[in-house]
Amino acid sequence: MHSEAMAKLIGAFRSLPGVGAKTAQRYAYSIIEMDQEKAQSFLSAIKDAKQRIKWCSVCGNYCEDDICDICQSRDKKVICVVSEPKDINAFEKMGEFCGVYHVLHGALDFQKGIGVDDIRIKELVARLADVKEVIIATNPDVSGELTASYIAGLIKPIGIKVSRLAYGISVGSEIEYADEMTLLRALQDRKEL
Amino acid sequence: MHSEAMAKLIGAFRSLPGVGAKTAQRYAYSIIEMDQEKAQSFLSAIKDAKQRIKWCSVCGNYCEDDICDICQSRDKKVICVVSEPKDINAFEKMGEFCGVYHVLHGALDFQKGIGVDDIRIKELVARLADVKEVIIATNPDVSGELTASYIAGLIKPIGIKVSRLAYGISVGSEIEYADEMTLLRALQDRKEL
Repeated sequence: MHSEAMAKLIGAFRSLPGVGAKTAQRYAYSIIEMDQEKAQSFLSAIKDAKQRIKWCSVCGNYCEDDICDICQSRDKKVICVVSEPKDINAFEKMGEFCGVYHVLHGALDFQKGIGVDDIRIKELVARLADVKEVIIATNPDVSGELTASYIAGLIKPIGIKVSRLAYGISVGSEIEYADEMTLLRALQDRKEL
Repeated sequence: MHSEAMAKLIGAFRSLPGVGAKTAQRYAYSIIEMDQEKAQSFLSAIKDAKQRIKWCSVCGNYCEDDICDICQSRDKKVICVVSEPKDINAFEKMGEFCGVYHVLHGALDFQKGIGVDDIRIKELVARLADVKEVIIATNPDVSGELTASYIAGLIKPIGIKVSRLAYGISVGSEIEYADEMTLLRALQDRKEL
């Protein structure tokens, strides 16, 4: 039904996360309908981003220089460890964290063959001189938990404080819909009022 | 918060239909995380589509040759008139229409300054020799209705049958949620059982 070039364009958009056949087709049509100038700037945006964006040599966040703005300007005594660069956004939006980050670029997953050398753990250990606390903010799933306890086991013996984000019910959520594991953790970690 | 190249990439994705800030950011990260080869084929898909896809010289549908497959192979006695190339997909998916199409690339909208010469009406009139029926399938909105009646007024005097898609309640929908105009048309056009 679609010509070859159109089918390829739809296929390209389908490779983006969460994009199904209908959405991909919608995007493809909008590309075809763009004037050449706009299409050109769409292309350049992708090309430039791929060329210019690299990993910060310290923390592994995406940046265009050798060292990212956060590493250049912030308190290096507290490191927040995350799995992916996009997790940093969530913290920065909150705006209350003044330390620096360390991006692992993954999480341990032995079933998928992702071991200790496949994520940036060595690089984290190399940054620990003068660090007072490491806050582990890997995802609250099996792989994130495994990574958190591995890192804790590695760092605690050095005498550095290691913490993990608190579990509990989401602010604004309804207890009726909280899953059992979350509710259990919220109960276990209850705070005296 | 984002580097310049990242902000531009997010901005580019926001120009796609229905893409908000969060989705654009998600797409941008997925581009950054793609390996170079996959990113390259994403870029080529866009570039090729923009270069190769043009309008069929007969019907105005998107195609890569001078004349599209549908115009080359199908019964030219019945022409279905649509506003946009994507409308053809809906018909082709249904699979029951054996005639050819005519894409207007727009619909009359005097408020927006889209007049008779801005959409492919001349080109439609030029195709009418040997045509038995013109089915008008512009959208069921003000602009589509206006276009439909303009075209009907132009073609009917030549002695060619002109029809319009039926209005009515959607198959599988609930009458409770049908809007008044649709229900009114469904009542007016009721069929004896």
